Amino acid sequence: MSSGVWFSTLGFIAWLCCLGLVQGGKVLVVPADGSHWLSMKILVKELYHRGHEILVLVPETSSVIHGSESYKTEVYPVPYTKEELYQKFDRLEDDVFRKSSRMTELHNNVQLFIDYTSIQVNGCERVLNNQSLMTRLRKEVFDLVLTDPVLPCSSILANVFSIPTVYFLRGLLCDLDLQASQCPSPPSYVPAYFSGNTDIMTFPQRVTNMAMSFMQPYVCKMTFRHFDDLVSRYLENKTTYKDLLSHGAVWLLRYDFTFEWPRPLMPNMVSIGGINCAKKAPLPAEFVNGPGEDGFIIFTLGSMLHNMPEEKAKQFFDMLLFLVEVLWRYTGWLPQNDLLGPTPRLKSSSPMVEPTVSTRVSVMLCPFPLFGDQLDNVHRMTHIFTLQLWYFLSYKEKVVELSQVHLDRPVEPLDTAVFWTEFVMRHKGAAHLRVSAHDLNWIQYHSLDVIGFLIIILLTVLFVTVKCCLFCTRKCCRHGAAKRKSE
Amino acid sequence: MSSGVWFSTLGFIAWLCCLGLVQGGKVLVVPADGSHWLSMKILVKELYHRGHEILVLVPETSSVIHGSESYKTEVYPVPYTKEELYQKFDRLEDDVFRKSSRMTELHNNVQLFIDYTSIQVNGCERVLNNQSLMTRLRKEVFDLVLTDPVLPCSSILANVFSIPTVYFLRGLLCDLDLQASQCPSPPSYVPAYFSGNTDIMTFPQRVTNMAMSFMQPYVCKMTFRHFDDLVSRYLENKTTYKDLLSHGAVWLLRYDFTFEWPRPLMPNMVSIGGINCAKKAPLPAEFVNGPGEDGFIIFTLGSMLHNMPEEKAKQFFDMLLFLVEVLWRYTGWLPQNDLLGPTPRLKSSSPMVEPTVSTRVSVMLCPFPLFGDQLDNVHRMTHIFTLQLWYFLSYKEKVVELSQVHLDRPVEPLDTAVFWTEFVMRHKGAAHLRVSAHDLNWIQYHSLDVIGFLIIILLTVLFVTVKCCLFCTRKCCRHGAAKRKSE
Repeated sequence: MSSGVWFSTLGFIAWLCCLGLVQGGKVLVVPADGSHWLSMKILVKELYHRGHEILVLVPETSSVIHGSESYKTEVYPVPYTKEELYQKFDRLEDDVFRKSSRMTELHNNVQLFIDYTSIQVNGCERVLNNQSLMTRLRKEVFDLVLTDPVLPCSSILANVFSIPTVYFLRGLLCDLDLQASQCPSPPSYVPAYFSGNTDIMTFPQRVTNMAMSFMQPYVCKMTFRHFDDLVSRYLENKTTYKDLLSHGAVWLLRYDFTFEWPRPLMPNMVSIGGINCAKKAPLPAEFVNGPGEDGFIIFTLGSMLHNMPEEKAKQFFDMLLFLVEVLWRYTGWLPQNDLLGPTPRLKSSSPMVEPTVSTRVSVMLCPFPLFGDQLDNVHRMTHIFTLQLWYFLSYKEKVVELSQVHLDRPVEPLDTAVFWTEFVMRHKGAAHLRVSAHDLNWIQYHSLDVIGFLIIILLTVLFVTVKCCLFCTRKCCRHGAAKRKSE
Repeated sequence: MSSGVWFSTLGFIAWLCCLGLVQGGKVLVVPADGSHWLSMKILVKELYHRGHEILVLVPETSSVIHGSESYKTEVYPVPYTKEELYQKFDRLEDDVFRKSSRMTELHNNVQLFIDYTSIQVNGCERVLNNQSLMTRLRKEVFDLVLTDPVLPCSSILANVFSIPTVYFLRGLLCDLDLQASQCPSPPSYVPAYFSGNTDIMTFPQRVTNMAMSFMQPYVCKMTFRHFDDLVSRYLENKTTYKDLLSHGAVWLLRYDFTFEWPRPLMPNMVSIGGINCAKKAPLPAEFVNGPGEDGFIIFTLGSMLHNMPEEKAKQFFDMLLFLVEVLWRYTGWLPQNDLLGPTPRLKSSSPMVEPTVSTRVSVMLCPFPLFGDQLDNVHRMTHIFTLQLWYFLSYKEKVVELSQVHLDRPVEPLDTAVFWTEFVMRHKGAAHLRVSAHDLNWIQYHSLDVIGFLIIILLTVLFVTVKCCLFCTRKCCRHGAAKRKSE
C-alpha cells in the first residue's frame, strides 16, 4: 500500500473519529421526577435517535422515570419509599381547594419544596457515597451532563468528573437560575417570583416587587439550604449550590416570550418553549370515537395531583354535566398533547400552558393553581388575555393569535435543544458565552466600590474647593479690613 | 356553484392573500453608505429572492449604493456633493497614521461622525419636505422599514407612516442602540464604547469604565443632537432620536459572542454575526492565478480609506516585500470574501474581523485602527488571542478554534435575518418581545423612587422605635427616681 493511500485511510479514520465526537457523544442524564422528566424525555429520546449514547441515573423510587429502548438506566438505591416521597403531596391535595393568602401560599410552596427535595438530597448522598457506582460512572468518560437543576446531584457529579453541564428547566424557586446565570432582572418591570405582579406595575406594586426581590436571596438560602450543605460537604468548602450552578454551559429554558414577561437574557440562555408539545401521536383506541360537533372539554389538573376531595369533584361534575362532552383526567394518565389536536374546544387546566396554545385550543385557567410556577402562569395568561390591545377580539381569536406567534420560530424547539446540547459536546462547553460577571463579587458587580471611590474623590474635590474659596475670601476680607484699618 | 365550493374558493383566495402577506411583503429600505450598505445589501437581495418587493431610498450623492435588478431605487436630491461628503474622510486619512491619545481619538471620532451625518441630516430633511415623494411613499403602503439606524431618516419615515422597523447594525456610537433598547450593560464587566477595556478589569479600569458610562448620555446628546433636532421638528415635540429608536421591532446585530464580549441581550435582539461573509463567488480572472505554496497576504484597510500618505505606503511596501505574495487593496475594490478562501495565509486589516475568522485565515490586526468600532475590534481580538487558556496553541490553531465556534450555529445568519424580517411583516411588529421598561422613566427604571420610599419607611420605623425606647427609658428612670425619692 502506498503512503498516499495510507494517509487517506488514516485521514478517513480521523474524520470518522471527529464525526464520532459530534454524532456519538456520551451523555449522563440526571432527571427530576414528575412532569419535569416528561418534558426532558423528549430531548433524551431525540439525542438517542441522533446517535448519542445515553445513561439515565434513576432513583429506585420514582414516579414516572422508567426504562426505555432509547437509553440505558442505572438504578441507585434510595433511603425512602414512594409513599414517603408522595406523602407531602397528598397533604397538598387536601389543602389545594382552600383559599389562602399569597404569603401563606409562598410559605407552603417553599415548605413543600424543602420537604420534597430534602429526602431526595439524602438519595443523592447515597450516589456520592457509592464508591463502585462512582468509579463506574467515572470510567464511562461522559461528554456531557444533561440535567434539571431542581435537584443538586447532577451538578455535583459534573463538577467531580469535570464534565460540562446543560441545564433543562422551566425556572427555579426564588429565581435561583437567574441569580446563578447573572441574568439582570430589574425589579421595576420584571415581576418577582410569586409576587402576582405583571410587567406593568403601579407604585405600590413596584414596592412589593422590590421588597420581594430584596427578600429573594434569603428565601433562596432557606429553600436550598439542604443543597448548600450537600455541595459544601462534597466539594470545596463554602461553595454554594448557586456557585455550582453558575458553571452551567447552556441553560435550555422551557418558555418563550409568548407566555413569559419579556426581560433580558444571557448569551448562554436558549428559549425552547413548546418543546413539550412538539410531536403528535395517533390517539389510543379509547379516544378515537371523537367528540361531537362542538368538540369536547379536557379537564386535568396536571401530573402531580392524583385525586381531589370527593365533595369538590362532585361540584365540578355537576358544573361540567351541562356542557359538551368532557374528558376528565381524574387519576392516571391522559394523552393530553395528542388530544389537543384540531377538535377539542376548551381546556380547563392550571399547570399546562404551552400544550394548549401550541395547538390553538382555547384554554381556561381555573382559579386554583396548585404550587410552583402555576400561580404565576395563570396570572400571566389572565393578563395577556385582558390586554387592552386585544379588547375587541373574541376569546378564540386571542388564542389563535397567540398560537401563531408562539409557533412562528426559525427552528423547532426540540432541534434547538439538540443543537445546543451537541454544541456543548463539540466544544467541551460554551466558554465564549460565559459572562465575566461570574468572577465578580456582589459589591464589584454593582460597582459599589467604584461609586464609593468616585464619591470620595468628589467630596475631596468639593472640600478642597470650599476650603480654597474660604481661604481666599478670608484673605480678601483680611486684606480689605487691613486696608480699611490702614486708611 | 354550490355554497361549499364558493367557500373553499374564498378560503383559497384568503389563503393566497395570507401567503402573499408572508411571501410578498413590501419593504422600504433606507441604507447608510459605505461598508454599512455592503452588508445590508446581502439581506436586501435575499429578501428579493424570497419574493418581497423592495424599494431602496438612495441619496443622489452616494459612494457604494447603486441600482440593481433585485430592487427598485428612488433617488432623492441632496444639498451636497460627493466631494463635500468625503472631505472629512480625507482629513481622516491624513491623521490616521499619527498616534494620539484615546481621548483625542474619541473626540475626533465624535467630531467626524457629527460632520459626516449632519450634512446627511440635511439630505433627510429634503426627503421629509418633498411632498410628492412623501405622498408616493405613503401610497405604497409598506409592510416594513429595514434600515441602519446610523442615520435618522428611516425611523422618522417609519413613525410617520406607522410601519414597524427592523434595525440592521453593528452598533451605534456611545452605545445608543443599547440605551434605546433598554439593554442592561453593567459597567463592572461590559466595557464602555471606546474605553479600551476588556471584560475583565482591574479597579482603576473599572473606575474609568464607570466614568465613561456616566459620560455616555452626554456624549450621545452631543453626538446625536442633529438627529434630535430633526426628530423634534418632524414629530411630537421633545421626542428624541433615542425615543424613536426604542420603537424598533427587532434589532439585527452584526456580531456574535465569538468576537463580542459576552453580555445580556434583549428578547428583540438577534445576533447575525458573519452575515457579511456568507457566500463565496468564483474569483475574477485577475485573481485566478493563485498563490504559491505558502499562500498570500491580503493587505486592506477597509472600504472608507481611499489612499494613504505615500511615505507610509512605501514603508509598508518595503516591509511586505520580503514576505510571500501580497494582494494590496490600495485604492478601488477587492473581492475580499472570495479571496479569503482556503488558501490565503495571513490578512492584515483592522476593520474586517468576521470575514477573516469565517474562512479560517489568520488575521493580523494592525495597530492603526481608523475610526468607529475599529479600535474596540482590534482590542477584543488581541485580548482573545492572548487568553491564558490558549497560551500553548499556535496562532493558526487559535484562529481555527475561533472559526469553528463562530461557524457552528443552528441557522445561517442570513436565514436568521430573513426569518426575523419576515416575522415582523407577518405579525406587524414583535410586540411580545418589547419590554415594558420602555414605559418607565429613568428614576422608575432604577427603582429610585421605591428605594427612597423604603428608606423613608425604614427611617420612620427607626425614629419611632428610638423615640419609644427613649420614652420608656425616661419613664422607667423617672419612676425609679421617684421611687428612690419616696424611699
